[in-house]
Amino acid sequence: MIKTIGILGGGQLGRMLSMAAARLGIRVHIYEPLPDPPAGDVAARVFTASYEDADALRAFAHSVDLVTFEFENIPAEALDIVEAITPVLPRRNALTVSQDRITEKRFLQEQAITVAPFVEVDTLPQLVAALATIGTPAILKTRRFGYDGKGQVKITDAAQAEEAFAALAGAPAVLEQMITFEREISIIAARNASGEVSCFDPGENVHKDGVLHTTTVPAAISHALQTDAVLLAARILNALDYVGVMGVELFVTSNGLMVNEIAPRVHNSGHWTQDACLIDQFEQHIRAIAGWPLGDGQRHSDAEMVNLLGDEANHLEQWQNCAIHMYGKAEAKPGRKMAHINKISPKSA
Amino acid sequence: MIKTIGILGGGQLGRMLSMAAARLGIRVHIYEPLPDPPAGDVAARVFTASYEDADALRAFAHSVDLVTFEFENIPAEALDIVEAITPVLPRRNALTVSQDRITEKRFLQEQAITVAPFVEVDTLPQLVAALATIGTPAILKTRRFGYDGKGQVKITDAAQAEEAFAALAGAPAVLEQMITFEREISIIAARNASGEVSCFDPGENVHKDGVLHTTTVPAAISHALQTDAVLLAARILNALDYVGVMGVELFVTSNGLMVNEIAPRVHNSGHWTQDACLIDQFEQHIRAIAGWPLGDGQRHSDAEMVNLLGDEANHLEQWQNCAIHMYGKAEAKPGRKMAHINKISPKSA
Repeated sequence: MIKTIGILGGGQLGRMLSMAAARLGIRVHIYEPLPDPPAGDVAARVFTASYEDADALRAFAHSVDLVTFEFENIPAEALDIVEAITPVLPRRNALTVSQDRITEKRFLQEQAITVAPFVEVDTLPQLVAALATIGTPAILKTRRFGYDGKGQVKITDAAQAEEAFAALAGAPAVLEQMITFEREISIIAARNASGEVSCFDPGENVHKDGVLHTTTVPAAISHALQTDAVLLAARILNALDYVGVMGVELFVTSNGLMVNEIAPRVHNSGHWTQDACLIDQFEQHIRAIAGWPLGDGQRHSDAEMVNLLGDEANHLEQWQNCAIHMYGKAEAKPGRKMAHINKISPKSA
Repeated sequence: MIKTIGILGGGQLGRMLSMAAARLGIRVHIYEPLPDPPAGDVAARVFTASYEDADALRAFAHSVDLVTFEFENIPAEALDIVEAITPVLPRRNALTVSQDRITEKRFLQEQAITVAPFVEVDTLPQLVAALATIGTPAILKTRRFGYDGKGQVKITDAAQAEEAFAALAGAPAVLEQMITFEREISIIAARNASGEVSCFDPGENVHKDGVLHTTTVPAAISHALQTDAVLLAARILNALDYVGVMGVELFVTSNGLMVNEIAPRVHNSGHWTQDACLIDQFEQHIRAIAGWPLGDGQRHSDAEMVNLLGDEANHLEQWQNCAIHMYGKAEAKPGRKMAHINKISPKSA
């Protein structure tokens, strides 16, 4: 029986995972290089050390029954050390796939899942050739370490190739065709070790400056597309023999669903589940990795989640009768995710 | 602005208050004599010291912006020390009233609120006389320190007086008439410093061996009685100029509502709010004492809360698709509150 879970990363996702674990009577130890992490306020123990500190990683791994993570760019060497001592869930294969955009797209294509046309780009001549193939508008993205619109640049004209290539500072990249979509949705899916899969209803996402702004549930899509999204998510989880919660970002296009990206962890676009589902994505993740039965994913209410960045979290007057989720971050830097709110209303069809 | 709240007591109520505070970005420090308290797993800091340790109490009080409590029998001397340094909410007058059954009943009568007929009992002859006045069945209760059916004995025949008196070992007591009631309900009410009052819907309670077993919402009472309960709770809160959440236990009798007892804190019969209201009793309490606007108390779902005592918390198989709230207690002693579950269903009228 899992009594203590270690989480690599102490940000807001680790914080909300910690509280979910506590509800199930499971203690959490946080591993985080930065001092005073958001998750530290609600965790039984915090290890403050770098991902290069093998001794600290070993002590951390020995102190828990199971390790999980709140972000996907954990150095492989750190995971090697931890995994030699304690099981890590979700398993490494999911990280390998999701850490590299090219690996991820190829994996998805192998599952017969549609992704945007893409070309690998390591040099400027490759980018020029890729633009000729893919056309514009297109997006040049680093293969690794991108998040919240960082590590990517939009190209509207082939003449911008040199400037765009320079912007990524020589990092291995991928050029993706920019997709014309009706809407962006995401589906948060969970799978446990016995192969049980459970999905939350797809939410509709609106981004602002490359960062998720709102998620609205239900998404304004047909029942057929909802089912497609569920089946597609299940296919991904099953192909990876995945254990845990995954966020799958999708474009709704005139030709059906296309996967934008996957995240092998709880996801910002699943925060609405905290207040519109009996068992939310955080608890679902803990249940999945700790071997508990999953919640059924049903929502009891419609919901809208709004991210509050920077100073927005200091102006809560407008969010009367909303659920407020503050991340406990000391400094409200511009653009930094500080909190989110959930508004709920009676469930529609 | 309140950034850190201290909680006197580290049990399950402190644990759930801590998580509610974290959602609002407020850190919690716990003060608890027993090592390894349930609230410690989700608190930023734990002070492990007795209520006689003046230095520890002072350090605790200095470390926070505001102090609250999760149980009402805090030694007055400890509160004196804390209060000299940091504000305590709810205020002392609510504790004075609720710590002593006689004081409480007299206070309620002053508010024109009906309570069961009662007589003060300090000696055996007083008990014999009281039984002649009140009749049987009656309940002899200690004036102070009673909870969960402890410190009370039922008297069905005047001949049991001596035995009953001996059972309370000479503690100052009160003899109460045993009320014939249709049902037991409770109402969880909140009031903030600006006098705003907010009530959750009354829940219907079933006890087992003197301990709360289930709370079901809505209670099967008329709309008129629901309104009576709300008005009665508001009268109590306003009379005390109360700040925080209070639990009011009521009997529904053929003559209307009668108050059984009040608790100046979050209450076991309000645990259903965690999963059936957007803002639950724990967050409502933190909002009230920290000067935030209150939630409106509306429920989005019907609910049933079931307490799990002792070994029951090791058998969760039957609670599929229920919200489980474990208290993180190491030892499942018989009768000990270990967890509760909440079942929800679509909201009825």
